[in-house]
Amino acid sequence: MTNDSKAPVTILGLGLMGQALAAAFLDNGHPTTVWNRTPAKAEHLVARGARLATTIDDAVKAGLAIICLTDYHAVHDLLAPADLDGAVLVNLTSGTSTEARDTARWAAQRGARYVDGAIMATPPYIGTPDALILLSGAPVDDQLTALGTVNHLGPDHGLASLYDAGGLTMMWGILNAWLHGTALLRTAGVNAATYAPFAQHLARGVAEWLPGYASQIDNNAYPAEASALETDARAMDHLIAESEAVGINTALPRLFKTFAARAISAGHGGEQYPVLIEEFIKPGNE
Amino acid sequence: MTNDSKAPVTILGLGLMGQALAAAFLDNGHPTTVWNRTPAKAEHLVARGARLATTIDDAVKAGLAIICLTDYHAVHDLLAPADLDGAVLVNLTSGTSTEARDTARWAAQRGARYVDGAIMATPPYIGTPDALILLSGAPVDDQLTALGTVNHLGPDHGLASLYDAGGLTMMWGILNAWLHGTALLRTAGVNAATYAPFAQHLARGVAEWLPGYASQIDNNAYPAEASALETDARAMDHLIAESEAVGINTALPRLFKTFAARAISAGHGGEQYPVLIEEFIKPGNE
Repeated sequence: MTNDSKAPVTILGLGLMGQALAAAFLDNGHPTTVWNRTPAKAEHLVARGARLATTIDDAVKAGLAIICLTDYHAVHDLLAPADLDGAVLVNLTSGTSTEARDTARWAAQRGARYVDGAIMATPPYIGTPDALILLSGAPVDDQLTALGTVNHLGPDHGLASLYDAGGLTMMWGILNAWLHGTALLRTAGVNAATYAPFAQHLARGVAEWLPGYASQIDNNAYPAEASALETDARAMDHLIAESEAVGINTALPRLFKTFAARAISAGHGGEQYPVLIEEFIKPGNE
Repeated sequence: MTNDSKAPVTILGLGLMGQALAAAFLDNGHPTTVWNRTPAKAEHLVARGARLATTIDDAVKAGLAIICLTDYHAVHDLLAPADLDGAVLVNLTSGTSTEARDTARWAAQRGARYVDGAIMATPPYIGTPDALILLSGAPVDDQLTALGTVNHLGPDHGLASLYDAGGLTMMWGILNAWLHGTALLRTAGVNAATYAPFAQHLARGVAEWLPGYASQIDNNAYPAEASALETDARAMDHLIAESEAVGINTALPRLFKTFAARAISAGHGGEQYPVLIEEFIKPGNE
């Protein structure tokens, strides 16, 4: 593998994640330029073959400009004085879909191509297939395969942030449900390792339902093939009662019931669970 | 397969679930007795070879007595006048672990062996391997294999109810997280079927973490190997901001943040997510 075959890249922002990105590019033979407000953070990367950019203009023009800063304010502050005409910016900074779309417009006005991305991995996983890199906007995915599994979601620059958010909600949703179940079983002296395979089996089983349930949403028709929402709501009352009886926190099952009760009030008690999408898409804090 | 090789069973309570249980036993060649407060519901089962019990005493003594009623009050009302001495009761009625343990003591005082159970399946799945039958108390699982996959959890009569509750919380936890994610993506015109495989991939991935996270709980040590809770909390703020910006319900990410913030206040910000178990095991409604 020679450097000649790989696209030159620049990493702007050498926090833990930026350093991991730069290291993955170096490992894969990309000509790699780095920039950081505190240049000392670049030293060990330079020792491994990276070039330290002296100015932002230099950094942005040296190759595909991969930005990994604290937030979008830092991105705008950094790039405001730079000449972006002809640059290709890949912004992997965490932000909302609104910030991504706004930044895409701002970059276009300055003559840059813009890709917004999100990294669904912690720094130690960068460079492995387990690091999922979500991209949206301009298509540059082939140049980022050194970082992990790259998934380009479409031309809407907001998509990477939205999928990232959708992934985070899955993660914490599952972990909290598992913690609630672990707390329930602990009251009977069952340890977490004993309950975990059961929870895992359930998680995999429920994951299987998602495509079928998604079809109900897309068809806006919710026949109660497996069970009706009013049956679920009774079982939720039972789950709240059980949680209360054993003396653990009831906030999670109460939230389940809040959404179900709202949908039943709206006349959906005889329909199936995915009809709750009608409640999730409405603004509200509870 | 002859009737002689199979244990005689009685089904008490012929709602949709009780009828499915009786049918599965008949299909598997068990001598099957049925009882219902309204005997008309037994007619089609009798036509298939079931015997209709004339009294509760007759029903309970005809074989392993499988009880499937609306709630535990109905169970006590039904069995109060019966002679239970020497009977084996398998109570598959939905209830809490406290009701199960109380009923086990009550049954023991009356000379009966008692098994408490929970059915993690809807009636159409009874008799297939997908019907998970959880049992706890006296060991009778071999006699119930006609119903599905039988899992005997231990001698504590409360275990079946607790595992059932732990399964329900996994189910709704995952479905709600998926609905929240589906709502997020819908704001960008992404349909539910497009997001579902991504959510499914995440669910399977997070399920993989559970045994390792469970070890942290059992060892009561939460080193931040993948990420620290304070980092998660910042990403939660980001998820709340994204949900608010696109105009969908924020209750679920706010609940994530409530638990995380509580654990951080308690000094666990530098530890890993499973440390939240300390919050889940405490009583509380929010």
